[in-house]
Amino acid sequence: MTNPLTTELFRRIDALPIVDIHTHVEWKTGTAASIGDILSYHYYTELTNSAEFQEGKFPFGDPEALTRQILPKLRFITNTVQYDWLMTISREYLGIAPSQWRPENWKAIYDRSVEIMGRREWRQEMVEKSRIVRVFLTNQYSDDLEGLDQSFYSPCLRTEPFILWIDRPQEREGLGRFLGHPIRTTDDLVAAIDKTFQKFVRHGMGYAAMSIPSNFQTYEAAAEDAQRVLDKAVSGTALDACDREVWGAWAMDRMCDACRKYERPFHLMIGVNRDVYQHGVPMGQDLFDSVNSMAGYEHILNKYVDVKFPTAVLADTSGLELTAAAWIRHNVYPSGHWWYSNQPTDIAREVRRRINAVPQNKIIGYFSDAYYLEFILPKFRMYKYELADALAERMERSLVHPNMEPFSLDDAMALAEQMLIKNPAEIIGIPGL
Amino acid sequence: MTNPLTTELFRRIDALPIVDIHTHVEWKTGTAASIGDILSYHYYTELTNSAEFQEGKFPFGDPEALTRQILPKLRFITNTVQYDWLMTISREYLGIAPSQWRPENWKAIYDRSVEIMGRREWRQEMVEKSRIVRVFLTNQYSDDLEGLDQSFYSPCLRTEPFILWIDRPQEREGLGRFLGHPIRTTDDLVAAIDKTFQKFVRHGMGYAAMSIPSNFQTYEAAAEDAQRVLDKAVSGTALDACDREVWGAWAMDRMCDACRKYERPFHLMIGVNRDVYQHGVPMGQDLFDSVNSMAGYEHILNKYVDVKFPTAVLADTSGLELTAAAWIRHNVYPSGHWWYSNQPTDIAREVRRRINAVPQNKIIGYFSDAYYLEFILPKFRMYKYELADALAERMERSLVHPNMEPFSLDDAMALAEQMLIKNPAEIIGIPGL
Amino acid sequence: MTNPLTTELFRRIDALPIVDIHTHVEWKTGTAASIGDILSYHYYTELTNSAEFQEGKFPFGDPEALTRQILPKLRFITNTVQYDWLMTISREYLGIAPSQWRPENWKAIYDRSVEIMGRREWRQEMVEKSRIVRVFLTNQYSDDLEGLDQSFYSPCLRTEPFILWIDRPQEREGLGRFLGHPIRTTDDLVAAIDKTFQKFVRHGMGYAAMSIPSNFQTYEAAAEDAQRVLDKAVSGTALDACDREVWGAWAMDRMCDACRKYERPFHLMIGVNRDVYQHGVPMGQDLFDSVNSMAGYEHILNKYVDVKFPTAVLADTSGLELTAAAWIRHNVYPSGHWWYSNQPTDIAREVRRRINAVPQNKIIGYFSDAYYLEFILPKFRMYKYELADALAERMERSLVHPNMEPFSLDDAMALAEQMLIKNPAEIIGIPGL
Repeated sequence: MTNPLTTELFRRIDALPIVDIHTHVEWKTGTAASIGDILSYHYYTELTNSAEFQEGKFPFGDPEALTRQILPKLRFITNTVQYDWLMTISREYLGIAPSQWRPENWKAIYDRSVEIMGRREWRQEMVEKSRIVRVFLTNQYSDDLEGLDQSFYSPCLRTEPFILWIDRPQEREGLGRFLGHPIRTTDDLVAAIDKTFQKFVRHGMGYAAMSIPSNFQTYEAAAEDAQRVLDKAVSGTALDACDREVWGAWAMDRMCDACRKYERPFHLMIGVNRDVYQHGVPMGQDLFDSVNSMAGYEHILNKYVDVKFPTAVLADTSGLELTAAAWIRHNVYPSGHWWYSNQPTDIAREVRRRINAVPQNKIIGYFSDAYYLEFILPKFRMYKYELADALAERMERSLVHPNMEPFSLDDAMALAEQMLIKNPAEIIGIPGL
Repeated sequence: MTNPLTTELFRRIDALPIVDIHTHVEWKTGTAASIGDILSYHYYTELTNSAEFQEGKFPFGDPEALTRQILPKLRFITNTVQYDWLMTISREYLGIAPSQWRPENWKAIYDRSVEIMGRREWRQEMVEKSRIVRVFLTNQYSDDLEGLDQSFYSPCLRTEPFILWIDRPQEREGLGRFLGHPIRTTDDLVAAIDKTFQKFVRHGMGYAAMSIPSNFQTYEAAAEDAQRVLDKAVSGTALDACDREVWGAWAMDRMCDACRKYERPFHLMIGVNRDVYQHGVPMGQDLFDSVNSMAGYEHILNKYVDVKFPTAVLADTSGLELTAAAWIRHNVYPSGHWWYSNQPTDIAREVRRRINAVPQNKIIGYFSDAYYLEFILPKFRMYKYELADALAERMERSLVHPNMEPFSLDDAMALAEQMLIKNPAEIIGIPGL
Repeated sequence: MTNPLTTELFRRIDALPIVDIHTHVEWKTGTAASIGDILSYHYYTELTNSAEFQEGKFPFGDPEALTRQILPKLRFITNTVQYDWLMTISREYLGIAPSQWRPENWKAIYDRSVEIMGRREWRQEMVEKSRIVRVFLTNQYSDDLEGLDQSFYSPCLRTEPFILWIDRPQEREGLGRFLGHPIRTTDDLVAAIDKTFQKFVRHGMGYAAMSIPSNFQTYEAAAEDAQRVLDKAVSGTALDACDREVWGAWAMDRMCDACRKYERPFHLMIGVNRDVYQHGVPMGQDLFDSVNSMAGYEHILNKYVDVKFPTAVLADTSGLELTAAAWIRHNVYPSGHWWYSNQPTDIAREVRRRINAVPQNKIIGYFSDAYYLEFILPKFRMYKYELADALAERMERSLVHPNMEPFSLDDAMALAEQMLIKNPAEIIGIPGL
């Protein structure tokens, strides 16, 4: 049965300011312009495409048409937590009661959303109402960061182009343009990484990040071998699995070198299988592999003893492996609950594992992964409820458990605050927090 | 503590008619003839053989002797859910109180069971009492289906002989007899599949099904390569792992072709390791592998965009992988809780994952896997209790959860009915439901 | 919310005597000499090293300095169950309130511990107070066992030197010294095993045990192949992965031969990755692999039909695999909850799985893995609380579950006693229990 303590704890935890260490928010806009933007989030398009197939095709360029098209399909997903996020946005921000979400109301909902979200003050109002104080971004090396509000946003470098995509001519040429000359040697790649870090650090860099394929391998790869792979890529020859592995291992080390040099963490996001569902919506074509070992990371975790590796895992099967790694490895920090694992069942288990076995100063509670600022509050509330429930259980257990001293409401709040604010601030190093 | 809402919800869910989309019931008999038949179910022989070893040997041909022999060993398994199924059968159908299950009472129990189960009306009474309205079968291509009551039974084609066992002379010759001439070419195999589907469709075919080894691979295999494997098999040369993989991949596609042509689903049952325990009872020699990736199914899931794939997984480690697949892939439907995962702990977790993240019109709640109709009720009750518990939790959470609107008793019942009846009816296409 | 039945059940279960079938206790001392010994347990050094890195270096030779150094770091791990164990030791044995554990009190705590633990009667008092009646040890073949109190301690043979370390000259020479002549042939190895068993059996041997790397393979390996590997090792040539596998498989069978001959169980501890964290404290450098199949054990489990294999698994992903193995295989016994899986979240799940699906006479509830006798009580209490909680849930469910008969407090206690005392006594064969 529902624990009354959970409600009380949630109320208090919900009142804490939000530090969101990983999002895909576009800093120049930040918020959605309409409910059509909200509904374009891949969760809604992928779930409705899954429920009632339309070959992954939605009118993404036309938010109004998208709203009209998706609304009738939402009835299939009212059971999901993703629908609950949407209803929180509707209730809290648009003032539209969930009962109003009927297909025939699509136009009224759309118009209302444009009215609310179109206001000049919208972003500020929403951020204040939601108590969002710091948002980390996901940026390409080439992103325009001029004018970024460093007191609110922290840019984070997405490292896939350097490590995974060197054989894609467009990506390689993009890197070359950024560097000022074509990428032809491994030194060029190192120079491109360095130039990128200089740029990002100038704009208040959060960390380097990578969404990493299942069973990625890190090891000491020779520059000569990497050069040979690069030559092959430049010449237009297709890389084989072995080439990719060598390049990945070598470039990963170079990225870690830069993290060390610029004293920035490297946020690992482990275990995605990209582009496996051909008929999916954009961003809704990726899955994960339950067969995924973290053993492949031993090399960098050992070698880069002074680099911090906040780590999120996609597979439930990696949950205890991550807890164990954070338990003994000083530079691994369990971070949030990612994507397919970002639902109550798996959050509940992992929160308890981490609280029971990882030093409390190492746990980074949550990040939203949001594409618009509006998603931050509902997603954090989902997590905060599970955290409140785990802490409430701990409080009650502590009164009767043979090994425990009383764990008070204050203790619970202190731990919640540490996981949600202090740890991110200290581990990543957030100025002003 | 036990939730009173669970009890109320269970009461209501238990009153729903039962649609059982996967059993091993023999349609010509259906019910057990005595408690000896019930006890011959591999769960009882394997658990008692495990508890007190007798080299997997029981008097399977003599139900009375089997009863006498197993009864004293049941004391070792009174803790199991399988024993609870047996007690439900005893209480509900035989009117024998669980307290009567003592070794010295074996004869009375046996006689009573023969008396009850031997009555001409037994099957009808039992089915009505249990509110079983539709039962899916497991059939070989060669099974006699003449006279099958299509208003109650749906035959389902077991596809292993076509896909896995082509190198077994007896199986291949059986297929040849069914086709009318020996299987010598890949075209012969296709013709045998087609003839099988024609026969099954004529008898109200449910779907094609396969119990698939761990880490099975699907991909586009060339007919020439398959022919070469078939030649090898026909010539009596042992197939190697690579041959098997090629044949499996090629034949799997041909089976999917037929599912497409005849518009029937393909029910995947993923992850069994057959014949690994040498000293086990019949049907009690198989296990699963925790290392099992669903990535091997990408090919068919993408290619057969118009074929529905209800999917059950054997390993707990495949649970979230299945939820994620059903969440984004339009043609994957999570189906029931299979075998080693068919116990409260793993059901409870998977039910919650599915309800939280899979479109509600895609979840097939449960199937019994029963060998006699008598097992359907106790197994469904086990599931329904876990479902009721998950829905009760959801109702209570909805009253306090920051993201949720009230989830009423009616909402809970609607979802339960959808998972247990409407979805199977719509996904598989059950006439009259 | 906390279940009052849990508390009542815990109280009763806690009153049972403790049979601890796996520890690393040094029989000649048994207890710690001071809190410095307690804090030298790798859990405290690894967790504090993880929380505040000091390159795994602690003054292990100086318990007083160690105490002073670790105490200020304990604030980072007050959330962990390992800290709870420490507080139980402090409260129950030292009479020091948890609130006293402040850095400035380190000297007082240390002095008090020396005073208490230094008393001649300490061991006896502690054992009696904790109701510890039987403790199994972890011993090398060469350990001095003369004078061992067989009414309290059972020596268990660690088999890694024979199976995994034959290429380490020091280990091989040690074996040779024990045997009386150098290990040069496979027959020598068999003779060394035999001599070891004779010695251990003379001292009341518990069982043979092995902490086994992830994905270990067992199969019928030829003595000639093993001899070739041994020759290579003796000649000083490095073994490759294939050599190691062959030797491992061959030597594993020889160890099983000895278990059969001397009628002793072989306790498998499956799934460790040794020495993967370079900067860790001693004993704090090992992790596990979530990708670990038990399929590699099929050979020995089938071949040694008359050898008992109590089995513990390190990975959560092996939990249901172990339950399923114990469910059908007569000679696999799920044993305790090991290391990274030895925390409430994973214990709670596995206890329920085992109680629901493994014959009750096959479940070995728990072992402490303790390095000092003082750890046995707090660790057993952690387990006993989870067991009480699972049994309380079962009692309450039984009152409303459609398939269950009432499961009374007496039933619950009988099951607990079986798992904690009777099963270990019968499965391993403990004289006097």
